[in-house]
Amino acid sequence: MSKALVVLSGGQDSTTCLYWAINEFGRENVSSLSFDYGQRHKIELDAAKKVSEIAAVAHEILPIDTFSALGGNALTDDIEVEEETAETSDSEEESILPNTFVPGRNLVFLTFAAAYAYQRSIKHLVTGVAQTDYSGYPDCRENTLSSLEQTLRLGMEYDITIHTPLMNLNKSDTVALSEKLGAMDAMAYTHTCYNGEQPPCGHCQACLLRAKGFSEANRADPLIERFQFFKD
Amino acid sequence: MSKALVVLSGGQDSTTCLYWAINEFGRENVSSLSFDYGQRHKIELDAAKKVSEIAAVAHEILPIDTFSALGGNALTDDIEVEEETAETSDSEEESILPNTFVPGRNLVFLTFAAAYAYQRSIKHLVTGVAQTDYSGYPDCRENTLSSLEQTLRLGMEYDITIHTPLMNLNKSDTVALSEKLGAMDAMAYTHTCYNGEQPPCGHCQACLLRAKGFSEANRADPLIERFQFFKD
Repeated sequence: MSKALVVLSGGQDSTTCLYWAINEFGRENVSSLSFDYGQRHKIELDAAKKVSEIAAVAHEILPIDTFSALGGNALTDDIEVEEETAETSDSEEESILPNTFVPGRNLVFLTFAAAYAYQRSIKHLVTGVAQTDYSGYPDCRENTLSSLEQTLRLGMEYDITIHTPLMNLNKSDTVALSEKLGAMDAMAYTHTCYNGEQPPCGHCQACLLRAKGFSEANRADPLIERFQFFKD
Repeated sequence: MSKALVVLSGGQDSTTCLYWAINEFGRENVSSLSFDYGQRHKIELDAAKKVSEIAAVAHEILPIDTFSALGGNALTDDIEVEEETAETSDSEEESILPNTFVPGRNLVFLTFAAAYAYQRSIKHLVTGVAQTDYSGYPDCRENTLSSLEQTLRLGMEYDITIHTPLMNLNKSDTVALSEKLGAMDAMAYTHTCYNGEQPPCGHCQACLLRAKGFSEANRADPLIERFQFFKD
């Protein structure tokens, strides 16, 4: 029996990955992990919790206080826009990378996740990084993830695999995949908006990119539908 | 001007590395970093602070609370003997590895150190790991460290180098090196004892291994001398 751990930000991509993992490993073998790293919008963590409930998998939140100490004020500023970066990698565009890239963050998260996985005899890590939309993020690229996997295997003497099911998909492909995997009920509770708004603001880059993906996939966004339902 | 960051546990090996870095990069370009990860003996952090003062380099302590959450009770138990592991890698022997190895810990520390270094335009990391005495620790081996360096370079798009000046030295070699580098004043304030005692207990594995190194190098241990001076 293989066990898998999904690094879950509560966004569109990691939620799709959660359902990918359920499909791949069986629901009873999948759990999810989120990081509380001082992100501006705690709504992300609420979304991750809710998504895990809907998917009926165990979920844990691990605090990483260290990020606020890492870089002094400069990084604290970075952290204030961190919901735009890799972990909730649903939502960024290359044009905003210089403002939101926190170097090494994704490496830290995945290394922590690997250490956590080791303690629980979990041999499969699943992460929603994609080099298609975010090729500017070096820690989301395939060669980085391959190198990290090798480092973790050597450093822990442990046969761990990092799965990146979305690595080469665009947003529209991801929407199609999430539909195929039955993730749409959970998708209604994901969080994407940069401004932390609920219902989503609809005009930030994250909301626009998400909307573009659903539009190209010819699918209504269940998140938008959920709020329209209440509004009507 | 190259700048270097030494990961400093306050033990014999990392202190030697601090002086190695000063010799290599110039004192004004060297700083040190310690991690407060809930180690049983806070005396380690006091030692790191004192050693940095004597070496006249800037020192910072970064909290990593996450370790206690990583593995539940099992890992908390591990953490209670953690001063015996990689970070204060001065002092362990292969025979005790299974009890003290916290998988992934050194990878997390070095990845954090790299993220910290990036924010400060520091391109050189120095760590006291050695595969000679601790070949049982996979995260202290040369191939792991090479792989990690590659991962960090790819993941941060940053030309960082991990230096491991003690990688292939035994304890006696390390004593000789620290003498040559003028590290003995600081060595008198390092901490090695597993039992957290000051003066060191003299009978734990850490104290015995340290004593063996000094003995084989035909050198009195300044730490022992310091307490003898007060006692006499």
